[in-house]
Amino acid sequence: MDRLTFDYGNMMAPRLSGRGIDPARLDAMADRFSGVVRQVERQREDGTLGFLSLPYETQLVDQIRKFADSPASLFEDVVVLGIGGSALGTIALRDALLPAGWNTLSADARNEEPRLHVLDNVDPRTIGPLLDRLDLSTALFDVVSKSGTTAETMSQFLIVRDRLRAVLPDEEAYRRHLVFTTDPDNGVLRDLARKEKIAALPVPPNVGGRYSVLSAVGLLPAALVGIDIEALLAGARAMDQRCRSDVLAENPAGLFAALQWLAHTEAGAPIHVMMAYGDALYSIADWFRQLWAESLGKQKDLDGADVFVGPTPVKALGTTDQHSQVQLYVEGPFDKTFTFLRLGEHTVDVPIPEIYGDIDALAYLGGHTLGQLLDAEQRATAAALARHGRMNMTIELPALTPHAVGELLMMLEIAAVYMGALYGIDPLNQPGVELGKRLTYGLMGRSGYEDTELPDADPRWISR
Amino acid sequence: MDRLTFDYGNMMAPRLSGRGIDPARLDAMADRFSGVVRQVERQREDGTLGFLSLPYETQLVDQIRKFADSPASLFEDVVVLGIGGSALGTIALRDALLPAGWNTLSADARNEEPRLHVLDNVDPRTIGPLLDRLDLSTALFDVVSKSGTTAETMSQFLIVRDRLRAVLPDEEAYRRHLVFTTDPDNGVLRDLARKEKIAALPVPPNVGGRYSVLSAVGLLPAALVGIDIEALLAGARAMDQRCRSDVLAENPAGLFAALQWLAHTEAGAPIHVMMAYGDALYSIADWFRQLWAESLGKQKDLDGADVFVGPTPVKALGTTDQHSQVQLYVEGPFDKTFTFLRLGEHTVDVPIPEIYGDIDALAYLGGHTLGQLLDAEQRATAAALARHGRMNMTIELPALTPHAVGELLMMLEIAAVYMGALYGIDPLNQPGVELGKRLTYGLMGRSGYEDTELPDADPRWISR
Repeated sequence: MDRLTFDYGNMMAPRLSGRGIDPARLDAMADRFSGVVRQVERQREDGTLGFLSLPYETQLVDQIRKFADSPASLFEDVVVLGIGGSALGTIALRDALLPAGWNTLSADARNEEPRLHVLDNVDPRTIGPLLDRLDLSTALFDVVSKSGTTAETMSQFLIVRDRLRAVLPDEEAYRRHLVFTTDPDNGVLRDLARKEKIAALPVPPNVGGRYSVLSAVGLLPAALVGIDIEALLAGARAMDQRCRSDVLAENPAGLFAALQWLAHTEAGAPIHVMMAYGDALYSIADWFRQLWAESLGKQKDLDGADVFVGPTPVKALGTTDQHSQVQLYVEGPFDKTFTFLRLGEHTVDVPIPEIYGDIDALAYLGGHTLGQLLDAEQRATAAALARHGRMNMTIELPALTPHAVGELLMMLEIAAVYMGALYGIDPLNQPGVELGKRLTYGLMGRSGYEDTELPDADPRWISR
Repeated sequence: MDRLTFDYGNMMAPRLSGRGIDPARLDAMADRFSGVVRQVERQREDGTLGFLSLPYETQLVDQIRKFADSPASLFEDVVVLGIGGSALGTIALRDALLPAGWNTLSADARNEEPRLHVLDNVDPRTIGPLLDRLDLSTALFDVVSKSGTTAETMSQFLIVRDRLRAVLPDEEAYRRHLVFTTDPDNGVLRDLARKEKIAALPVPPNVGGRYSVLSAVGLLPAALVGIDIEALLAGARAMDQRCRSDVLAENPAGLFAALQWLAHTEAGAPIHVMMAYGDALYSIADWFRQLWAESLGKQKDLDGADVFVGPTPVKALGTTDQHSQVQLYVEGPFDKTFTFLRLGEHTVDVPIPEIYGDIDALAYLGGHTLGQLLDAEQRATAAALARHGRMNMTIELPALTPHAVGELLMMLEIAAVYMGALYGIDPLNQPGVELGKRLTYGLMGRSGYEDTELPDADPRWISR
């Protein structure tokens, strides 16, 4: 089977007229890298890195298949209530692996699979009308929260529960419209699942939100809409095997991490733009944005010293952002690297007809396809950046298949862990979000948080 | 009428325990700023800054109204073919000012107004199926390109023209499904409009794409779906008047620009995150991203010297990105400022029911609304950033109205021009995108571009 390829030539000084990374510096990483791989293998063994086991969990796949192939197949809408790591992976899988505009297609065009909504915000203007429109009697709600305490998701759950009970007063009936994806033993949702006999799937305790796409968090919604989750996991396994090599030159996640780390710490590029060529790949860039920011943005290193590190991930969309961001990318500061995502093959394509052959500005387009134009623009943009001395690399998926997407997600997750080791920080925690949560609790009047009062706005510094 | 307020207290050193901007440094900008305003007023007079006149073009509004209120009202789908500045403003207006999920609503819920699609990419997987699904006999295509040479938009146009002619062989009929928004006198689309008698609206030559939202580029689609464009322009006029003051403390766009410039050049923050609280405001952050990047990302200053400047704009969405980016924002490097967009009032809201009062982690939510939660999280995030020494400011729209959106767009456009003056660069050009266009032409076989061959990939630096 064709597999993902990763071209990093445009990161290297010989291709960038001296800017970029000296190949000798990359070679010099080899020793340190094999130490990193050994450390990761130890953490695989001791269970610290639970996400590495997910592609091998055949029992979980059976459990999900059983759930997805039974009464769920009767639902017309699947609604995920979740935010951050409980939503981004599912959105990435949906947008990459279902036909575009899935939720607007007829049931026939969807092969009778349900629509898939992911509610990952608490905007009343979005949620109110959507719930008003949904036929709750044919909708399944998947409430995804490891702890069961996420304010946004639990608010949505309270609203949905209330509405479901109003439409389906019978407890047996109501219950069938809910499934919880949560900690296997503890927490609010697990307790409720037990008490109210609601179906529940596990998020392993050693898998954090941003590494959870290949757990039930992402697999259940994917299976419910007919995505081939076995192929997705096979792709992830294939990549995991490639990334067990402690030879840097043979380990794609290792190369990705080593190059990004050198680009940031030695070549002055703290901003990492992931530019997806194709609408279907854009949500993977958004998923990556969480993986990179939460894993690597840290105040403390492993010794507890203040380091305030972390590259800033940015998502971009080609060709669209050529007309929005590329002016800055080409001419602005040399503070960025670019990772392009592209497809080797377009299984859906649209020919551009040969009309207006007498108009120079149009004639060259006819006879090509939109897929060819998209590909040409990606190659042209990568080359233009390189000629302007801007480091960039290109990941090519052979085609838009579950296997290729599984490879890509796994490669990036492993790369995040390697990056954590190179920066000397913990890529698995997120202590910085606690203060905001506490202050929100205070503003919402949660008992025990009365000491979190906010200062008043200062009228000196308000323009009205 | 309530107007937009701008709170920048959390940019200032006294609120950030010494990090951030010294109030004396802001005061010291006053003289220089009044010079900037005088320069902008001269450029308003001499026609360099065409966008400043747009809110006063009553004749254009009449022309658009005439078009929008006539046969167009019979269409069920309006499809904009455009990219970059020809699309981002329209998307921002649609998402901010129409009910959420507009295109999925019934005709009744849309007050019989048409759906609005904006095709701003050339992904065949998106465009092919969409065109297959559309009923072309009730669709209007607005082709938006100032020059009529944009490869992406013209490819779409060729495809659409071919399909329209197949469905509507009668020339009279076919023609009524097209409108061009383009240069008033020159270019490919203007010539075609004349030759094929197709309706056309003007983009003034002195208005660049990223400053064109209040021209026919944004106003025509907005009017076609029932947005109150007069109120939008009234808001823009109100802001323009506020921003004619050469007293920095009274000029909101001036304060915005001065603070951002100080934050970047004196307080070490080259990254400018715009974080919209509410799904409806997110596309404004995306529009802003083009405005900021293309206007300020420049290799040369006005004297032609290499400067390679430009802050990097980043879009973020609250509350969603609290669970994705805030870890980095709070704990990572001190290289960012944050501009929050929020609403003073939620005209659509959803109450959170009071159930599970015995569960501590849920009880505090009941009795509030989703709007209150969204607001509390914004305030909490701003305060948490400030406590961690991170500069941030908050723009509050009194409500989600065309007037308030008009105020906001105009404020940001004027701020971009002020920023250009402060950096000493031209905020109106975009020379950096030319090379990529030339290389694309070469790859697509356009005659005259045979000299743009790309180097082969280097097998040393490919991981397969």
